[in-house]
Amino acid sequence: MSQDPTPRLTTLSNGLSIVTRQMPGLHSAALGIWVSAGGRNERAEQNGIAHFLEHMAFKGTATRSALQIAEAIEDVGGYINAYTSRDATAYYVRVLEDDVDLAFDVISDIVLNPVFDPREIEVERGVILQEIGQSMDTPDDIIFDWLQEAAYPDQPMGRTILGPAERVSHFNRADLSGFVAENYGPGQMVVAAAGAVDHDRIVRLAEKVLGRMTPIAQGPREAPRWQGLETRSVKPLEQAHFALALEGPGFLAPDFYAAQIFSSALGGGMSSRLFQKIREERGLCYTIFAQSGFHDDTGMLTIYAGTGADDLADLATLTIDEIKRAADDMSEAEIARAKAQLRAGLLMGLESPSGQAERMARSLAIWGRVPDPAEVAEKIAAVTRADIRTHAEALLANARPALALYGPVDRAPSRDALAERLAA
Amino acid sequence: MSQDPTPRLTTLSNGLSIVTRQMPGLHSAALGIWVSAGGRNERAEQNGIAHFLEHMAFKGTATRSALQIAEAIEDVGGYINAYTSRDATAYYVRVLEDDVDLAFDVISDIVLNPVFDPREIEVERGVILQEIGQSMDTPDDIIFDWLQEAAYPDQPMGRTILGPAERVSHFNRADLSGFVAENYGPGQMVVAAAGAVDHDRIVRLAEKVLGRMTPIAQGPREAPRWQGLETRSVKPLEQAHFALALEGPGFLAPDFYAAQIFSSALGGGMSSRLFQKIREERGLCYTIFAQSGFHDDTGMLTIYAGTGADDLADLATLTIDEIKRAADDMSEAEIARAKAQLRAGLLMGLESPSGQAERMARSLAIWGRVPDPAEVAEKIAAVTRADIRTHAEALLANARPALALYGPVDRAPSRDALAERLAA
Repeated sequence: MSQDPTPRLTTLSNGLSIVTRQMPGLHSAALGIWVSAGGRNERAEQNGIAHFLEHMAFKGTATRSALQIAEAIEDVGGYINAYTSRDATAYYVRVLEDDVDLAFDVISDIVLNPVFDPREIEVERGVILQEIGQSMDTPDDIIFDWLQEAAYPDQPMGRTILGPAERVSHFNRADLSGFVAENYGPGQMVVAAAGAVDHDRIVRLAEKVLGRMTPIAQGPREAPRWQGLETRSVKPLEQAHFALALEGPGFLAPDFYAAQIFSSALGGGMSSRLFQKIREERGLCYTIFAQSGFHDDTGMLTIYAGTGADDLADLATLTIDEIKRAADDMSEAEIARAKAQLRAGLLMGLESPSGQAERMARSLAIWGRVPDPAEVAEKIAAVTRADIRTHAEALLANARPALALYGPVDRAPSRDALAERLAA
Repeated sequence: MSQDPTPRLTTLSNGLSIVTRQMPGLHSAALGIWVSAGGRNERAEQNGIAHFLEHMAFKGTATRSALQIAEAIEDVGGYINAYTSRDATAYYVRVLEDDVDLAFDVISDIVLNPVFDPREIEVERGVILQEIGQSMDTPDDIIFDWLQEAAYPDQPMGRTILGPAERVSHFNRADLSGFVAENYGPGQMVVAAAGAVDHDRIVRLAEKVLGRMTPIAQGPREAPRWQGLETRSVKPLEQAHFALALEGPGFLAPDFYAAQIFSSALGGGMSSRLFQKIREERGLCYTIFAQSGFHDDTGMLTIYAGTGADDLADLATLTIDEIKRAADDMSEAEIARAKAQLRAGLLMGLESPSGQAERMARSLAIWGRVPDPAEVAEKIAAVTRADIRTHAEALLANARPALALYGPVDRAPSRDALAERLAA
């Protein structure tokens, strides 16, 4: 499938993993630390702290100011950034081949040694409050937060990553240190690197800097309890924004690949059913898509579209009908096309160092290993039409859709009406 | 600088160019047709037609329906898309190595043979009106349209790409055919491909399919006339969105590289002055950046930030002060860092087939050739502190900033007040 070297994995005695993939011909590298600690590891009163911590990593360490962190990487033309999700926080750098050691030095420093200067906490609080404002001003961003909340009300899985402004306004140094102590152990960390990288060299660096970390016992996460409610926010926007979700399988479920094939054929590309029926045939929207998201213990099929106020009812019922029809009569040709898209995506992803580092780190966190692309391709190929049908039936059997509506949505059908149509 | 093969260029007798770069080790390719026809080639009554045409290319050709176009590419796991800018319209595909011929076949078909079925025009009109709605609902998208209009009022350079809804509501088949006849000649087209591609093979395909096209005389474009006005739209958003622009050099100007270095040091990264002063020290925003944009005959330095209503006046005056200070005392270290970022961006871009195809096509359209990365790196290296100062002085000498404000901006300083502070 590919002549490129396979990933190499080393686990230190304290539980920290290092996974790398050397990519011949590349003169740059992506390197990062993925920490299995995110929104789902927050208690209610901590909501937003994982993300606040991610921000504070860049605000100064024992030996570097915020400016020195940025300068160290940008002096060599590199790029440094981070993100927080429900399952993880990732800190990563992209640099040219000569600067991999430097990249490791900076990334490990900001993860290991942030100082949480109280003055910097105050400044960063303002930055995050603006980030929350920016998200609120972006309907096709904030609607997914609301959808998540409607799916999983009052539990870590349903809370936002940014956290509510009221909580962000009160976090302090002890909150940050507390979250680190509870969640940032070596067993929760993966160093992942891809491109022009040397495995043994990165292992040596990791041993020296991260090998001294003491393992911690990370607390248990709350099991997600899908509810599938409705959230509706009426506002005079140009578009009526519509997002619908159904509970799906997680990474470890037998229908993990079937779920990806189903969502791709339903709404993954221009040839998909939702795109063809609702955009190409009816012209009801510019953006419409279905996508499947995964955690280790659960997952979600999400559909999003933006349309006109007068067309929303039509779009919503057409969407429900297409989900049902897809569950009922997905053709071999559609399944083959979805498989080709997954396989090509996998192969093209192998050519991007950033994508590779991310894929390896996530694979390790989920499966404890990095599946070979050929193995993944075989699993995709092995999915049958019957598997897709079984998956789709499970999706519909548990037909408690979550619904989020935003904009001129006062006349939109209710979640209950859509649930009924889905079950009919 | 790179052992990879240099680009190969062939020009057909009718003026159409083919540029390719084979990238060893890659198993995928990017291929597209870049047409030097965009918003700037529209007369006032045509505003939006270049973009409407881009949409119609996907709605059926003499031999393929819209669904067949999508299926042809997605059956092999490929990805097809297009965009329209002020200078060009691009149609492109990403596929695995075995599917390059197919990719060329589909892309050349949709560019050469769209049928403009009146029923499909009606449907697509609805899609584009929704696209306009989506843009209106995204403050940090629409504000750049308003900024452009404030910079270049009542002229092609200042009009939006999507066009006003009233015009989009009335375009017909003759409008589309007319724009094609005026602008889509072989001399206006570049076929660009990068990755697992074979130059001679693509040239043969292009000769066969596009070699028969007859050259056209594309009409002259209106020279841009910078005005630098203000547009202010008061709305109860969470953030006050601020965008400011100064007239800068074009691609062909002697200070083309100095402009990129200046904007990078001013607001291109985390170590830049605007990021440090306004986000890191003051916490006034989440997003703030400066960037330089270029056309062949002119260019623009743009600064954007989103902030709180109470902080907007502060942010605006701090921004003006930082521009002035940067023009006055940019250090050798900052210049070196900006150069390192440009150089690394260039090298990392060489590793992405999509980025390469785009870069080669744009280079050909602007300079009639594809500069070697080593040559570009030399030009970047050659820029001196004195060059930066000369560039910055020219930026400020012509201090007629354009200003766009959106959100709770009723108490924001005026464009005139900011212009005065800039000139002081």
